[in-house]
Amino acid sequence: MSKGKVCLAYSGGLDTSIILAWLLDQGYEVVAFMANVGQEEDFAAAEKKALAIGATKYVLVDVQEEFVSKILLPAVQVNAVYEDVYLLGTALARPVITKAQMSVALENNCQFVSHGCTGKGNDQIRFEQGFYAIDPEIQIIAPWRLPEFCEKFKGRKDLIDYAALKGIPVAQTGAKPWSTDENMAHISYEAGILEEPNTTPPKDMWKLINDIDNTPNTPQFINITFEKGLPTKIDILDGQEGKVVETVTGDLNIFLTASKLGRLHGIGRIDIVENRYINLKSRGCYEQAPLTILRQAHVDLEGLTMDKEVRQIRDQFVTPTYSRLLYNGAYFTPECEFIRGMIKPSQVSVNGTVRLVLYKGKSTVIGRYSDSEILYNAIESSMDELTGFSPVDTTGFINIQSIRIKKYGLTKKNRGETVDL
Amino acid sequence: MSKGKVCLAYSGGLDTSIILAWLLDQGYEVVAFMANVGQEEDFAAAEKKALAIGATKYVLVDVQEEFVSKILLPAVQVNAVYEDVYLLGTALARPVITKAQMSVALENNCQFVSHGCTGKGNDQIRFEQGFYAIDPEIQIIAPWRLPEFCEKFKGRKDLIDYAALKGIPVAQTGAKPWSTDENMAHISYEAGILEEPNTTPPKDMWKLINDIDNTPNTPQFINITFEKGLPTKIDILDGQEGKVVETVTGDLNIFLTASKLGRLHGIGRIDIVENRYINLKSRGCYEQAPLTILRQAHVDLEGLTMDKEVRQIRDQFVTPTYSRLLYNGAYFTPECEFIRGMIKPSQVSVNGTVRLVLYKGKSTVIGRYSDSEILYNAIESSMDELTGFSPVDTTGFINIQSIRIKKYGLTKKNRGETVDL
Amino acid sequence: MSKGKVCLAYSGGLDTSIILAWLLDQGYEVVAFMANVGQEEDFAAAEKKALAIGATKYVLVDVQEEFVSKILLPAVQVNAVYEDVYLLGTALARPVITKAQMSVALENNCQFVSHGCTGKGNDQIRFEQGFYAIDPEIQIIAPWRLPEFCEKFKGRKDLIDYAALKGIPVAQTGAKPWSTDENMAHISYEAGILEEPNTTPPKDMWKLINDIDNTPNTPQFINITFEKGLPTKIDILDGQEGKVVETVTGDLNIFLTASKLGRLHGIGRIDIVENRYINLKSRGCYEQAPLTILRQAHVDLEGLTMDKEVRQIRDQFVTPTYSRLLYNGAYFTPECEFIRGMIKPSQVSVNGTVRLVLYKGKSTVIGRYSDSEILYNAIESSMDELTGFSPVDTTGFINIQSIRIKKYGLTKKNRGETVDL
Amino acid sequence: MSKGKVCLAYSGGLDTSIILAWLLDQGYEVVAFMANVGQEEDFAAAEKKALAIGATKYVLVDVQEEFVSKILLPAVQVNAVYEDVYLLGTALARPVITKAQMSVALENNCQFVSHGCTGKGNDQIRFEQGFYAIDPEIQIIAPWRLPEFCEKFKGRKDLIDYAALKGIPVAQTGAKPWSTDENMAHISYEAGILEEPNTTPPKDMWKLINDIDNTPNTPQFINITFEKGLPTKIDILDGQEGKVVETVTGDLNIFLTASKLGRLHGIGRIDIVENRYINLKSRGCYEQAPLTILRQAHVDLEGLTMDKEVRQIRDQFVTPTYSRLLYNGAYFTPECEFIRGMIKPSQVSVNGTVRLVLYKGKSTVIGRYSDSEILYNAIESSMDELTGFSPVDTTGFINIQSIRIKKYGLTKKNRGETVDL
Repeated sequence: MSKGKVCLAYSGGLDTSIILAWLLDQGYEVVAFMANVGQEEDFAAAEKKALAIGATKYVLVDVQEEFVSKILLPAVQVNAVYEDVYLLGTALARPVITKAQMSVALENNCQFVSHGCTGKGNDQIRFEQGFYAIDPEIQIIAPWRLPEFCEKFKGRKDLIDYAALKGIPVAQTGAKPWSTDENMAHISYEAGILEEPNTTPPKDMWKLINDIDNTPNTPQFINITFEKGLPTKIDILDGQEGKVVETVTGDLNIFLTASKLGRLHGIGRIDIVENRYINLKSRGCYEQAPLTILRQAHVDLEGLTMDKEVRQIRDQFVTPTYSRLLYNGAYFTPECEFIRGMIKPSQVSVNGTVRLVLYKGKSTVIGRYSDSEILYNAIESSMDELTGFSPVDTTGFINIQSIRIKKYGLTKKNRGETVDL
Repeated sequence: MSKGKVCLAYSGGLDTSIILAWLLDQGYEVVAFMANVGQEEDFAAAEKKALAIGATKYVLVDVQEEFVSKILLPAVQVNAVYEDVYLLGTALARPVITKAQMSVALENNCQFVSHGCTGKGNDQIRFEQGFYAIDPEIQIIAPWRLPEFCEKFKGRKDLIDYAALKGIPVAQTGAKPWSTDENMAHISYEAGILEEPNTTPPKDMWKLINDIDNTPNTPQFINITFEKGLPTKIDILDGQEGKVVETVTGDLNIFLTASKLGRLHGIGRIDIVENRYINLKSRGCYEQAPLTILRQAHVDLEGLTMDKEVRQIRDQFVTPTYSRLLYNGAYFTPECEFIRGMIKPSQVSVNGTVRLVLYKGKSTVIGRYSDSEILYNAIESSMDELTGFSPVDTTGFINIQSIRIKKYGLTKKNRGETVDL
Repeated sequence: MSKGKVCLAYSGGLDTSIILAWLLDQGYEVVAFMANVGQEEDFAAAEKKALAIGATKYVLVDVQEEFVSKILLPAVQVNAVYEDVYLLGTALARPVITKAQMSVALENNCQFVSHGCTGKGNDQIRFEQGFYAIDPEIQIIAPWRLPEFCEKFKGRKDLIDYAALKGIPVAQTGAKPWSTDENMAHISYEAGILEEPNTTPPKDMWKLINDIDNTPNTPQFINITFEKGLPTKIDILDGQEGKVVETVTGDLNIFLTASKLGRLHGIGRIDIVENRYINLKSRGCYEQAPLTILRQAHVDLEGLTMDKEVRQIRDQFVTPTYSRLLYNGAYFTPECEFIRGMIKPSQVSVNGTVRLVLYKGKSTVIGRYSDSEILYNAIESSMDELTGFSPVDTTGFINIQSIRIKKYGLTKKNRGETVDL
Repeated sequence: MSKGKVCLAYSGGLDTSIILAWLLDQGYEVVAFMANVGQEEDFAAAEKKALAIGATKYVLVDVQEEFVSKILLPAVQVNAVYEDVYLLGTALARPVITKAQMSVALENNCQFVSHGCTGKGNDQIRFEQGFYAIDPEIQIIAPWRLPEFCEKFKGRKDLIDYAALKGIPVAQTGAKPWSTDENMAHISYEAGILEEPNTTPPKDMWKLINDIDNTPNTPQFINITFEKGLPTKIDILDGQEGKVVETVTGDLNIFLTASKLGRLHGIGRIDIVENRYINLKSRGCYEQAPLTILRQAHVDLEGLTMDKEVRQIRDQFVTPTYSRLLYNGAYFTPECEFIRGMIKPSQVSVNGTVRLVLYKGKSTVIGRYSDSEILYNAIESSMDELTGFSPVDTTGFINIQSIRIKKYGLTKKNRGETVDL
């Protein structure tokens, strides 16, 4: 008799194939689930493999549109970034996958969900916290945290032996000395030789983004238009003051275009040591072309169109909090719902167009304008103009600010201290 | 009879020459003050000109060492940045100049200090708040905020006529259609044609940093070593795994080396619309090579060596607050003294070396190590290792975190809502 | 010929009567505006006086309902408080008054608005920033900041002489040696003898709230019910476990009931030195009964019903920012609109009832419950119960948290330091 | 053969007596440790009992002085408070106890430390995180989280049976229907009947602080003097303007005096539902007299003597972060060391004396002064004075602030929206 039905996040690779077989061995029925988040993948082969191993069913869900519209573009809108450089590519994909997996589990009456994440990473937490939020009753099987499973599969050899036993095909090409996670926003490289943080990644590791030496020798000029902080159009130009040769609209198209151009021009590689949620440090390399370009353009447009104080509050409280929550797998939590609610209201005035050039590994802003917003006013800002401005006001402003500052100087003096650098 | 003695921040340019002459006209005695902050400048010519116009005295103070050690490297140490991209080059120079000017004023028994800043910018505030903190009794003459001065000098023609009248030489080459401010950390370009934020700066505007097309075709590999978050050594290598061909130590040398290499390889140009303290927006272009490279390396090393929670607190509270205070000219205030005091304690563990390559407009981190710090532990972080780690612990961790999250899901359910993206 | 029409915030007192007469003298036409914010006031006498002095018109606007529903109860909802103790009574009234005055100005085609605030206080800023936001074209006459007015009226004697000249009646009773501002939320006392911060206010200064020695000897038990963080009902009981003798609903009634009971039982007097927006310190005494009781009950209910992390984010970012903005007169700003938008979403779960006793100067919470919320679960929280809880989970939780903490200890050890208090 | 030596946090009560016996049963040698943190306790009886059960040794450490000077007064200095009302009495005691226990463990060559905390509370975490920081190699035995222990002792009856078996005396008086934790700062009541959050605590539960009806009918006037934010003197007066009848100095004496007077006058009872670190909510009642009075006086003095901006930064970042870290048992962490380092620098100017009256359950500030600080200046703040102040400056200040605000109004207008409440 079946112990119940498990919806397993299946990847087609060795690990989740082993888990699939092992779950069957344990007496579970298994529905193999895959999400298309824009990764390079042979889904047909994965389906075939899952069914061959013994899955009752294989379900592939294409979440690309939802991923872009609900998660990736709002991340651009809030300038999400973790520890200064990581644009959260993996973390951002988790909520859509989690939601899709839970839908599949529900539709197939699964009492259990399972995944192949290790016990030391962030992803297990990102998935499981989401599972519990979506259905507090769901039961989770995390094999890599089960003593009996870890005991049985101590190294790659154990996995291969078990695969042979179960007739699971293993790729002839040896595994790469690192592991990857890919989606339309990025690819990550970690583990293996990368665990030594001073090892420079080999050139042939990088997969998505051109090496600078292989990028075109002609700069690419583009204009990105935003409405309420979300990109709504990319114009591709044939020169700095050139004419528009292509106009791209639609969330997915915009994202894929930013991706294609960024990858071509070598934009968006990083290499960092980051702090995982579970208090271990980890080295990761990432190729994150589209988010790099879109975020840069968005930040620039905020300079032109966003109120200074709203921006300051957003920068200090919303952006880091949202980024940290995403990284820590807390998308489906009350605090993240609360913080997410602040993104849109911060962006009502972020309307306009940013002009960029993509060239030799870098995107560079070369101008921006807004037809609707008035916060920037060239005449008013002009150093050569006094229209509508009384310089005496600034004297008053400084005097009022200095009431407190003079007291500071005086207090120092009274204490025999000096005001110094 | 003299109205008193004024210490004037003199630049040798037209504006402050006019102010010098005007102050003399008003019956003041004037000490012309200049600070060497590493800008390109003919100090001898400036001295000659000041004395020719009628300054009682010309005092040049070389503050380069102090600027680097007390201000620029601590800015690297705290990752200072304003509105995501501006590394505060101008703002950082103000405190050293302010302090030097006040010393000269004091030594020369000046009752007044004066400057040529406009009434719409940040610099007037940066100087004056500092003046008042250092000596709450000092009197400030800010001609560009005096109605009588503004009335007299309404445009460039008025300045030139007055210069002719006073025998002040005016450069034959017409003024550039923008204004600049330079020091060893950066050069800024603003005003003039740049006030239209969609005008792409002409290629020949950029002065310090090579255009990508003019950068060397050979990458430059360097190692930057930090102690307690401050750079203490740059090793220049002759290849990725190459040998050290030069070792640079000493605060000023390190900074100038980062500057020289960054400028050569085209690193550090930005173009933004920023929010001035006085609530106007302003477009600025900056070349900020050395801070770009040093900050990037420093941020990277923090990933390897800094406690996650200390970093988070520092990132959210100290870095943005310090940066904003600097930008707003509040260096000499109690709150800035308070915040500055937090920089050092945050950096005790930031010891190690970062390896970078400078190439085609970008610096890229390619590895890092620390001989003294233990927060990163490759074995412990390894996905393939369970040494000293019980995966069951993570289950407990997730279960405890999920107590709250399950309630969130349950509450939603009870309300007939769904947990969704 | 008239210089134009001024809408003057009129109080009926000496100062604004003088200003009214002086504005007429200057050639303006004047509409006298008063707002009923629940203060004790003889509005009919004020009207008569204004018209007698020469106002074209007197307009009284009753904003009490709006004040409670739009401002006071939301302040309770966000736990607004300035510098730990001041519940912002004066500051909260300003936005409703500002809006009403601008409406009157608009309806009466006034090009100008005017007020009697001094040049050193917060109120001038609260009014004027609001005026400018509501109509950026409005022109403001702030007599106490006009040199010609200050010159003319240097002291109380000048005011009285001018009143005599203009036939303005002056109250025979000498002015109290402090000034007050009253509305339904509070009364403030400042200036005069209170400017010496060590002077204990005389007992007869306090006007609204009973002295402890004059409060009833029977405790008053009440239940306050909140929906989404807003009080919707007060039940008045006849004993601790007594029956309900009166049920109060409706925003204004609830507020007035909290006020009446709080004042009777001596609740809500404070005495502080606060930091004004313009960088001066100021001593103020306040009687703030209703906000004291309602805020205390609200805070308590949040303990029972609000998610911990949402509360933490709200407490650290929303409450102090909102309170500071209110204090600084920034209600009508983009940042305040942004922050206000966060209040409601934080309160969806704040539903339930708090039981309090009012007695001898204090309100004390004695219990609370919620019929709809499930975050608190007595069985789950019980130290004696293990239902649905595995103590081993906590071990895992602590172990994961301690990864970082053990490294801290080890680092200290390696450095020859000890972990100490 | 012994399994090793355990240093057990012993209380003399039933639970830790059982644990002591059980540890012996398991083959451990046990050192019984107690800390005197000012609780009411028969230490001699506890010693006798521990030795009778079989402890190798009993060690009592008096940490009262250290507790006050290193923890309690610095908590006053930073205004520590958790979730608006809880002054952290229990949490504050943990670091001193942890440190003392680890010293005893070390001196007695214990490989293990143990405690009787439950698996659902905060205290286990506060102790264990501290243990690990002080000695990352220490091994922890937490019986209430060991499945075998929980299995054996499922209810009070199992404990009593085991006590009978081991000859452990059990108090004849039935246990109270709640549990308590006492130290010189406070007593807590939780669990048992208090787990129902709407149950009003019975009058006879409260132990330390007088019921209002039992407080003296004569107010007690006191002056508390602070140096750099730490209380250094309490003067006890015989009337509002009365003479000093007693002067108390010395950290411990000051604290005990505040405690004695506060308890006498009925000050410092609270009743809340709080958020435990492990994501459960919990109802607690606390009597916290001395911290209530000292904190209130300290907050008041900061109003008079602290720079506004330093205070704002401290209030928003330091106080809540420190309080949360303390509550969460993170005293011995790098982030808490970092935050603690900010307390002192924030307090250099907090020098002066606060006058209070204690009466009928409340302490009330009635005045304050500082001989050394100059931030408050009665003349300058005076509404009646223009000395050293130009009202025109405020106009400039408002105009500069309003640049942004007028644009807000104009933007709204352009969008057809209105600026409204």
